[in-house]
Amino acid sequence: MPPCSASAERGFSAAELAGLFAGEVVGDPARRGYGLAPLYRAGARDISFALTERHLGILDDSGAGIVLVRRGIVSGDRLESPRRSHVLVSNPHAAFARLTSLLYERRRFVAGVEPGAHIHPDARVDASARICAGATIGAGSQIGPGVYVGAGVFIGEAVAIGPGGYLYAGCALMDGARVGCAVIIHPGAVIGADGFGFAADDGKWVKVEQLGVVIIGDEVEIGANSTIDRGALDDTVIGDGVKIDNLVHIAHNVRIGEHTAIAGCVGIAGSARIGKHCAIGGGAGILGHLEIADHVTIHAMTLVTRSIREAGEYASGIPHQPARAWNQSLASLRRLGRKRP
Amino acid sequence: MPPCSASAERGFSAAELAGLFAGEVVGDPARRGYGLAPLYRAGARDISFALTERHLGILDDSGAGIVLVRRGIVSGDRLESPRRSHVLVSNPHAAFARLTSLLYERRRFVAGVEPGAHIHPDARVDASARICAGATIGAGSQIGPGVYVGAGVFIGEAVAIGPGGYLYAGCALMDGARVGCAVIIHPGAVIGADGFGFAADDGKWVKVEQLGVVIIGDEVEIGANSTIDRGALDDTVIGDGVKIDNLVHIAHNVRIGEHTAIAGCVGIAGSARIGKHCAIGGGAGILGHLEIADHVTIHAMTLVTRSIREAGEYASGIPHQPARAWNQSLASLRRLGRKRP
Amino acid sequence: MPPCSASAERGFSAAELAGLFAGEVVGDPARRGYGLAPLYRAGARDISFALTERHLGILDDSGAGIVLVRRGIVSGDRLESPRRSHVLVSNPHAAFARLTSLLYERRRFVAGVEPGAHIHPDARVDASARICAGATIGAGSQIGPGVYVGAGVFIGEAVAIGPGGYLYAGCALMDGARVGCAVIIHPGAVIGADGFGFAADDGKWVKVEQLGVVIIGDEVEIGANSTIDRGALDDTVIGDGVKIDNLVHIAHNVRIGEHTAIAGCVGIAGSARIGKHCAIGGGAGILGHLEIADHVTIHAMTLVTRSIREAGEYASGIPHQPARAWNQSLASLRRLGRKRP
Repeated sequence: MPPCSASAERGFSAAELAGLFAGEVVGDPARRGYGLAPLYRAGARDISFALTERHLGILDDSGAGIVLVRRGIVSGDRLESPRRSHVLVSNPHAAFARLTSLLYERRRFVAGVEPGAHIHPDARVDASARICAGATIGAGSQIGPGVYVGAGVFIGEAVAIGPGGYLYAGCALMDGARVGCAVIIHPGAVIGADGFGFAADDGKWVKVEQLGVVIIGDEVEIGANSTIDRGALDDTVIGDGVKIDNLVHIAHNVRIGEHTAIAGCVGIAGSARIGKHCAIGGGAGILGHLEIADHVTIHAMTLVTRSIREAGEYASGIPHQPARAWNQSLASLRRLGRKRP
Repeated sequence: MPPCSASAERGFSAAELAGLFAGEVVGDPARRGYGLAPLYRAGARDISFALTERHLGILDDSGAGIVLVRRGIVSGDRLESPRRSHVLVSNPHAAFARLTSLLYERRRFVAGVEPGAHIHPDARVDASARICAGATIGAGSQIGPGVYVGAGVFIGEAVAIGPGGYLYAGCALMDGARVGCAVIIHPGAVIGADGFGFAADDGKWVKVEQLGVVIIGDEVEIGANSTIDRGALDDTVIGDGVKIDNLVHIAHNVRIGEHTAIAGCVGIAGSARIGKHCAIGGGAGILGHLEIADHVTIHAMTLVTRSIREAGEYASGIPHQPARAWNQSLASLRRLGRKRP
Repeated sequence: MPPCSASAERGFSAAELAGLFAGEVVGDPARRGYGLAPLYRAGARDISFALTERHLGILDDSGAGIVLVRRGIVSGDRLESPRRSHVLVSNPHAAFARLTSLLYERRRFVAGVEPGAHIHPDARVDASARICAGATIGAGSQIGPGVYVGAGVFIGEAVAIGPGGYLYAGCALMDGARVGCAVIIHPGAVIGADGFGFAADDGKWVKVEQLGVVIIGDEVEIGANSTIDRGALDDTVIGDGVKIDNLVHIAHNVRIGEHTAIAGCVGIAGSARIGKHCAIGGGAGILGHLEIADHVTIHAMTLVTRSIREAGEYASGIPHQPARAWNQSLASLRRLGRKRP
């Protein structure tokens, strides 16, 4: 477990939790919780949560001292217990998320530059930032207040990192990248490598030098080993609050609207424009030069081949079957394809 | 924007562009362009290009001073304009690509070894190469003239990098890798990690040590966080002019023919042989021990399960549908599979 | 070729190979082999192997001095040859795998800490370990006997690496990761980055701090640029003997049973539990919160959408077709979906 915060030492009472999350206490309001745990292994000093009917099923057996329960999934009298307080809230998952930050300090650090960091004399690094050993910061780059630059991070020339950014070990931000406030970039992510741009000429490929940059908004999170390419002539733009999982590929000139979430192993081809508040399932592929509206959900391993103009859910992934049954489906599909319409 | 070149300072006149690209000027041949921009935001000092009917539609509103137009898509008299010169060329995209190199210098550097680089005494580094801080070069490796080795690049033992190579920060070339001339490797790419080779023995896996290497031809480009494994007994070979996008996985013993292009998130399994001048769409998967002919195009997210002997286009990806409609298709497919042929 | 071992200098006679692998010699038992090569290019001093009928077809033309042959695929008298000895064994592939280790030393190194390594004073590093330049080891971490920590490897705080581990250049093990004995981690792999956990709150995402760690068993191998996320509250657990290829994504709280093998580009979503002795084909996607039994084989590019309770083979990938034929199949499928059942 990561280091606990000052809040964790004093913990939160059920009444305090109700105050924080506009909730209502069932049981002893003075009972205190000091840590977080899932229902099945929480102890008397832990806070846990119950979102669904499934969680309610194991609630009785839980040792948790305090449980955040989604309002409306159970009547208050069913929750009476001598050894547990409940707090009814409208969104226990969000409450739980906020408690993970309040009770644990995952990204605590001491300001300063470690020996073994390579900082160009023309770079500007705020005094409250931390630059770890082996990190490189190029000419003209600016590192804002409270930024953490992990071991071996590469920051090219003319890069700007806004306040509160946290760049984990070994990620790379290439020349010209601009990053907003409170952005988290995980190890191995590469921001601003060249887009895949070539012109065919007599059977060979002529490189189109990629002249744009990557612009990342505030409170964006980018997963381990994901790649976001610089634009060709225009820029690649990631909106505020976008969350990107691991091993995601975002090609040149793509624009992603605010608060969209992209699961692992997704690939988005060049110049696609994704709306706001979208959710893109793992392994999905999105072709280039198309537009996706706001509030679109794409299921896992779907191939998006043309623009999507309306909010809603879209899919083309095929659930597994026993291989023998699947082979029969394939054979039928092939026969179908051979028939005249 | 990256630094402009000496050419950019004097720019190119329409007549000079016609000379470079075997083109024909419509309008003032003396008008000069100094930079590149897309039609919709180009200004009087910019060069832009029109490849398609769609581009022609926005040509009239463009502020571009010079536009390279594909010969034959429009009659010359429609192009007369007092504020713009046009140059008709057969391949404006390739012309534009060459101008990106002529007008901008993306990979300019000063020769020398930075403090903080770790170079084995038995490695040979050409005096015209640049070795950045935190790079490691192992025993017996050779770095050719004009090579750039970025910060934190790892070069193992007995690696050879040909003239003009550009190795971006944090890529890795493992023992024995041989790289041709003018190869570009983007951040995080790993060349020569062990192939995935194990022998089953009584329910456990026995590692097959991977004894081959990776051999990369001239003018190859390899995208960020892509991986090309060393061969098991034979070598993995990437032909001249091959272009590989980000997050591509190329397994042991694969051979890829010259001038083939591979888009992001593709996986190619062991011992596959891909022909020359192929184009492999994003997210495609190619099984092992098969052969693909020259001039084959594979569409995005296609699964290639057996050899392809003839040039042409191949596919198996399914375009998205609204989830409800897709579920109906799936149900029908399942019913089909249950019917007797 | 990597450095040969002491065994390679004296080689193995056919009789010695028969002793090692419980085999039976056909031909001269005193003939010695000193290296390994595939049948088609093996010479008189090489050992090769024949697993299948296909291999037998090229056996007569092979120059190999010794060939390990799967017992039962050919009668002994067909193998008589004046220039070659044969050793009949039950599992020549496993025998061959063991010989790759006996004859070549891929991971030989000298103990000690190179200049330019950054080791926290509160870390404990065994004297027999090797720590290369640019590696970082955080407070409270323990590096066991015989461990190799490559150039630029990042090891966070409170990480434990068991005896004999081999961490290739540039991989990252984040805070709290625990790694068993003889684990191999390839370049760029990231162990213990944050899981992708967010709670929706009024159209925005609230980060769920990821408080678990990654626990890796003995003799696990993890491919280049793969990512294994830390658990949210629980841990992510990789069982003994698991083999993971390149560019694989394993999300938070996943558990993978012993001796399961996972091919390249696979994505496994959060809290999935994979059984023992499974084989997961390249590019497959496995949704979250489901269970897969032991001894399950998933074919390439299959989407696993619900739990699999029974051992066996499962699939949903579609083999490629010529694009025109595939478009007809798609049109038929779409028509089917529109019909009433």
